[in-house]
Amino acid sequence: MNVNGTHYRTIWVDQHSSTTIRIIDQRQLPHRFETVALHTVEDAHRAIKDMLIRGAGLIGATAGYGMYLAALAAGENTIHRDLQEAARLLKRARPTARNLAWAVDRVLFSVASLAEADAIRRQALGTANQIADEDAEFCRRIGQHGKELIRELSHRKKGAPVNILTHCNAGWLAFVDYGSAIAPIYAARDEGLDLHVWVDETRPWNQGAKLTCWELRQENIDHTLIADNTGGHLMQNGLVDMVIVGSDRTTYTGDVANKIGTYLKALAARDNDIPFYVALPSSTLDWSIDKGADIDIETRPGDEITAITGCTKNGTIESVSVAPEGTRALNYGFDVTPARLVTALITERGIVKAEKSAIGAMFSDQKPTIAI
Amino acid sequence: MNVNGTHYRTIWVDQHSSTTIRIIDQRQLPHRFETVALHTVEDAHRAIKDMLIRGAGLIGATAGYGMYLAALAAGENTIHRDLQEAARLLKRARPTARNLAWAVDRVLFSVASLAEADAIRRQALGTANQIADEDAEFCRRIGQHGKELIRELSHRKKGAPVNILTHCNAGWLAFVDYGSAIAPIYAARDEGLDLHVWVDETRPWNQGAKLTCWELRQENIDHTLIADNTGGHLMQNGLVDMVIVGSDRTTYTGDVANKIGTYLKALAARDNDIPFYVALPSSTLDWSIDKGADIDIETRPGDEITAITGCTKNGTIESVSVAPEGTRALNYGFDVTPARLVTALITERGIVKAEKSAIGAMFSDQKPTIAI
Repeated sequence: MNVNGTHYRTIWVDQHSSTTIRIIDQRQLPHRFETVALHTVEDAHRAIKDMLIRGAGLIGATAGYGMYLAALAAGENTIHRDLQEAARLLKRARPTARNLAWAVDRVLFSVASLAEADAIRRQALGTANQIADEDAEFCRRIGQHGKELIRELSHRKKGAPVNILTHCNAGWLAFVDYGSAIAPIYAARDEGLDLHVWVDETRPWNQGAKLTCWELRQENIDHTLIADNTGGHLMQNGLVDMVIVGSDRTTYTGDVANKIGTYLKALAARDNDIPFYVALPSSTLDWSIDKGADIDIETRPGDEITAITGCTKNGTIESVSVAPEGTRALNYGFDVTPARLVTALITERGIVKAEKSAIGAMFSDQKPTIAI
Repeated sequence: MNVNGTHYRTIWVDQHSSTTIRIIDQRQLPHRFETVALHTVEDAHRAIKDMLIRGAGLIGATAGYGMYLAALAAGENTIHRDLQEAARLLKRARPTARNLAWAVDRVLFSVASLAEADAIRRQALGTANQIADEDAEFCRRIGQHGKELIRELSHRKKGAPVNILTHCNAGWLAFVDYGSAIAPIYAARDEGLDLHVWVDETRPWNQGAKLTCWELRQENIDHTLIADNTGGHLMQNGLVDMVIVGSDRTTYTGDVANKIGTYLKALAARDNDIPFYVALPSSTLDWSIDKGADIDIETRPGDEITAITGCTKNGTIESVSVAPEGTRALNYGFDVTPARLVTALITERGIVKAEKSAIGAMFSDQKPTIAI
């Protein structure tokens, strides 16, 4: 998508050096646009763990390239063992994101039968590129399928703006391009449909305020920032036509792990009879867990809640504390929205009910490939 | 309650000057403890509007003293007219808080039949003091009634800590003393019951992080700060035994206007079969509105969302922006939790179902007094 009118992806191989991967440092947004070079698997691990990048698809793509960087640095004779170690390191970076392990395993699988270090390196890069390209392409298709839902609402509203609420950032910044939850919005905009986005600020990391507002602004999509507390009131008052969120891991039974607070919005949508959609590429599906309650939910440092980082009037980025010194805070990164509250999933293959049988039927070819 | 071991109320007549009212400047908490003098009705209006003080009961008490300050400044012959004007000014300060109009009207009513300016001034002070004393006493009783609910849960948990979730600040800082939602917690603590409080940070003003954490800390009550998004996940995982919140206005049919986001917690409590209580003195009851949807919901400036104020590492209080420059934000202060989601109301007269008939029966004597 666009940054000041120039097309970007969120991760790419440096055009001057094929051993360097570049990412956008999302911690600096919206205040500064800076790219960062990744040279080693440790760099990739740190980028994921310290949230220079985040988001389901982008975590996967970064992990894929991280495996490639590990292959570059591996010893000629120990490369398989070194890659196994790199895989363990990367998978530890963040526990809830499904795409992380999926991408790492996909690179491992693609090089498993190769012996030559150079061939392994070439293949690791090839697989990482494929993961990134596929992520972008799947998100593009999610946009096409999801757009139909917006068009239907637009038609029902006789062209009046369709109000879409989203939580966190599941835009292009969370993937390689297009995004999951925001992809249908971009696609609908491209078709000239009138729409408006309610952006949950998404505490404690403020991905909505910092990232979703930024990318919607870059793309000239009409939007309004709200506190996470506000969505229920808007829904009670007829100001939300649909909710679209992303997912960090979705069980094959349709339970959805996504940014903490998603469950509360799903409850409010149900209480007010508003459709609640979850957009995800199939790489986010977990075929090994049959209920959301078994998903490992990441806890992050409490100081992400007690202190807030932003830009001061004189342009420096500062952290200010909002709680008494020494306050204990508990910081869960995700929650689980049960399938019963999900109207449907929007995937690269189309709209599907959040149910085991429907999901299984649509992705019947994937279970064996993915369950490594 | 206690501040560094010294007993305070949130508002009082200056001990050296009976024409000066003192309040705690709550915008400085938790970083600084400062008191501010109010000399005029304009000072009182500003204190309410700019949120030096906030909270259902304290807004009422401040408005009561504001009327007294107006009486002091009024002309001998124009005092009734001047008081009417002061009443209009004060009522404009914040639209949703029920106690504001209630307190103003109560002072007006108490002086309506008096002619002498001095008698009016004495009576205005007397009524303002009475409002403040009654607020503290009613909150103390709310604590006694609500404590029984905590004791029952404690008994059921065989003495293991009772986990109570609260939203915003309905502690003593929101009233003259004790608080509404927190009063039962203080009373239970005084009885030696083991408990732990989940404190919603309460965006965008962060009353939970800034005020509730501060007052619980001053009183040595075990607590943990969480993002507003977290409550649902905690409830799904058995980590919340009950919810207690306050109210800014409750219809006589049991619909509850309270800090934005309350409705979402009520939905989650219902979905997880957790009792959801609303604590309020009867001064918060609105006998003129029969459904919550008709309550006027305050909107506040958007920059309360786009910028966050806190304390930097070197101790200065700064505001940092967390959204792209120029981002539009919509800032509703309250939402309405329908009576169907409320387990019961905790009032100064006891626990009552959130239903017209039950509320009417418990407060049958109040309708004529209050409906001025």
